[in-house]
Amino acid sequence: MSVIVTATASVNIAVIKYWGKRDEELILPLNDSISATLDTNVMCARTSVCARPDIEENEMYLNGIKTSFDNKRLQTCLNKIKAIATLQKVVDKEFLSWNVRICSENNFPTAAGLASSAAGYACLVTALAKLYKIESDISQLARLGSGSACRSVFGGFVRWHAGGKCDGSDSTASQIVQSTHWPEMRVLVLVVADKKKHTSSSIGMKRSVESSELLKYRVEHCVPRRVDEMINAIKGKDFQRFAELTMKDSNQFHAVCLDSYPPFHYLTNVSYKIIDVIHKYNEICKETRVAYTFDAGPNACLFLLEKDVPEVLSLIKYIFPSPNTDYVRGLDVPKAEEENTFETFPIQPMEENKLQYLIYTKVGDGPEIHYDGPHLLNELGQPLNVSKT
Amino acid sequence: MSVIVTATASVNIAVIKYWGKRDEELILPLNDSISATLDTNVMCARTSVCARPDIEENEMYLNGIKTSFDNKRLQTCLNKIKAIATLQKVVDKEFLSWNVRICSENNFPTAAGLASSAAGYACLVTALAKLYKIESDISQLARLGSGSACRSVFGGFVRWHAGGKCDGSDSTASQIVQSTHWPEMRVLVLVVADKKKHTSSSIGMKRSVESSELLKYRVEHCVPRRVDEMINAIKGKDFQRFAELTMKDSNQFHAVCLDSYPPFHYLTNVSYKIIDVIHKYNEICKETRVAYTFDAGPNACLFLLEKDVPEVLSLIKYIFPSPNTDYVRGLDVPKAEEENTFETFPIQPMEENKLQYLIYTKVGDGPEIHYDGPHLLNELGQPLNVSKT
Repeated sequence: MSVIVTATASVNIAVIKYWGKRDEELILPLNDSISATLDTNVMCARTSVCARPDIEENEMYLNGIKTSFDNKRLQTCLNKIKAIATLQKVVDKEFLSWNVRICSENNFPTAAGLASSAAGYACLVTALAKLYKIESDISQLARLGSGSACRSVFGGFVRWHAGGKCDGSDSTASQIVQSTHWPEMRVLVLVVADKKKHTSSSIGMKRSVESSELLKYRVEHCVPRRVDEMINAIKGKDFQRFAELTMKDSNQFHAVCLDSYPPFHYLTNVSYKIIDVIHKYNEICKETRVAYTFDAGPNACLFLLEKDVPEVLSLIKYIFPSPNTDYVRGLDVPKAEEENTFETFPIQPMEENKLQYLIYTKVGDGPEIHYDGPHLLNELGQPLNVSKT
Repeated sequence: MSVIVTATASVNIAVIKYWGKRDEELILPLNDSISATLDTNVMCARTSVCARPDIEENEMYLNGIKTSFDNKRLQTCLNKIKAIATLQKVVDKEFLSWNVRICSENNFPTAAGLASSAAGYACLVTALAKLYKIESDISQLARLGSGSACRSVFGGFVRWHAGGKCDGSDSTASQIVQSTHWPEMRVLVLVVADKKKHTSSSIGMKRSVESSELLKYRVEHCVPRRVDEMINAIKGKDFQRFAELTMKDSNQFHAVCLDSYPPFHYLTNVSYKIIDVIHKYNEICKETRVAYTFDAGPNACLFLLEKDVPEVLSLIKYIFPSPNTDYVRGLDVPKAEEENTFETFPIQPMEENKLQYLIYTKVGDGPEIHYDGPHLLNELGQPLNVSKT
């Protein structure tokens, strides 16, 4: 008998940023962080796993291509899960001795800097935990794969507790509120056309920890206060406060990158244009209707309420024109009540193709197990949709 | 009898940055800063002043164009100097009652973001102090015109003490060392081709003071330690330490701009390219041979020792090619001992014309009085070289 377990999980967008590890090995962060998990229907990872006696060695397929299992973080996750299963004694020893085959796909471009590893590892540990019948907290297992992945094991708004223990056992995620708590919240992902190679977040974090004096202050004084304020803003559905904190925390994270030595930067002139446009728009509206946040790359995530989506989307299309017919992807966009014109908007549009495309989505639920598929492995445990390259 | 007093003064480049006022009116800074005054022979302001009974109202000519005297800072400087002269009783009351004519010119583009106001006000107060026979400290008079101008009243390396008094009487500049102390020190100013309007430093500072949490930490913890270290590096001619502190402090200032709300930025993709090139060059050299620093604009000032000028200049010309025949200005460039090629340099050149021009200069002396001219006013106190526009 072969059991195929298939799970989906989504990316998450941090509104209080994780930047800096206190333990590189166990991926323990210097500070708490807060994120929103996005709708699995728009952007998700799908992972099928199986364990069989006829699999000669552990195998991994990513987006249809067989990839090496010789990946420390991947092995750490699998070994840790098997160790817990061994202790729990709910699956038999023989099953535990079999090798696994893992097949994973993203429904969005992996390389677009859209935190695909967070969705990927959240999905992987969800599927493996199910396979090995683990009932305990899986956020710390996801964390071992990719730090911020631990926040993707819950839906809605999620807090990753830095924790204080050396073994990392208290560095776990918890849900602040479900996605249904703030159903009006929407997200626009602006994918910037950019070919430049950026400093990887692992290397960047390490450099900031080693050299940025401002990071120390951020971790000790700024973030703890912001985390409390952010939780209050989310629970109280105070968009103004939520938006301001989100923007300030994104800016502070990028300030820390610049304060590192040697400095590095993720924001491009297109990113700065987005920042300027959002502040100008909010100023004209006389209230904060949109918040931006940027991770370790030039792409922006905008948070806004559903009622403001048509106008803001028109503004983005005005400032960042594109000839592409599939420029706006994701959920159906609510229709504008009136035609928006921005000819008097005080910031001039850029030339075409500065943004690749936009993804319209919302805050969504955590990982799901799909008993009925579609699976990425057939009943014999063989991968489907495999490229020959 | 008409006395024409003519002075020259140079710009200064901060290596520990001034960013944030504790008093807007008196221009009192939040923290000490340190700068190098540049060679007056390359970049300077020249100002002639006279006081005559036949001048109907105070007059100001800037770069050949009559400009309004209705400028608060200009009036504050003049009034303060006259008040001191009145107290000192070394010039007679009648002379003090006459109006003044001021004629000032810069020998470098005013709008290029090269701290022309610092040179201008240092020059102005030097000339006026001479006219009214003031012997006391003039750095605080220059400070009333433009904060950082107080550092241009001395040559060599200069410290602006923040001071603690409410009246600003202890917010003065003092010389750390004369320019002859470190005669090998050279400066390359890289003028970036950029048409974008930047947030003015006055507005930027105010926003940072009001909103940046990181600025507080910088002022209280980072700068005091850096000032001590920088003074030691300068006195001990420790280029490595000097260069590292200079770069870190420039980066931290720009980090604070990004941490302000709304954020603003002065560095462009060309500025970032300069940063990356300098770090890569130092890394290849296995020692820090060049330091960059950026003020409230995209232009870079590089500090380096004379022996390294030919190679670094070749590198800059390789990365930032220009068809201009007068691309390198200022002092004569020492000849390279061997031809430098950078074909294996790991950073690719940009397209032409990303930099407008380079100014090669060095650390120089403070303001000078020019008894023999050339003056910008004739013996009747009338301005020479005045445009009709």
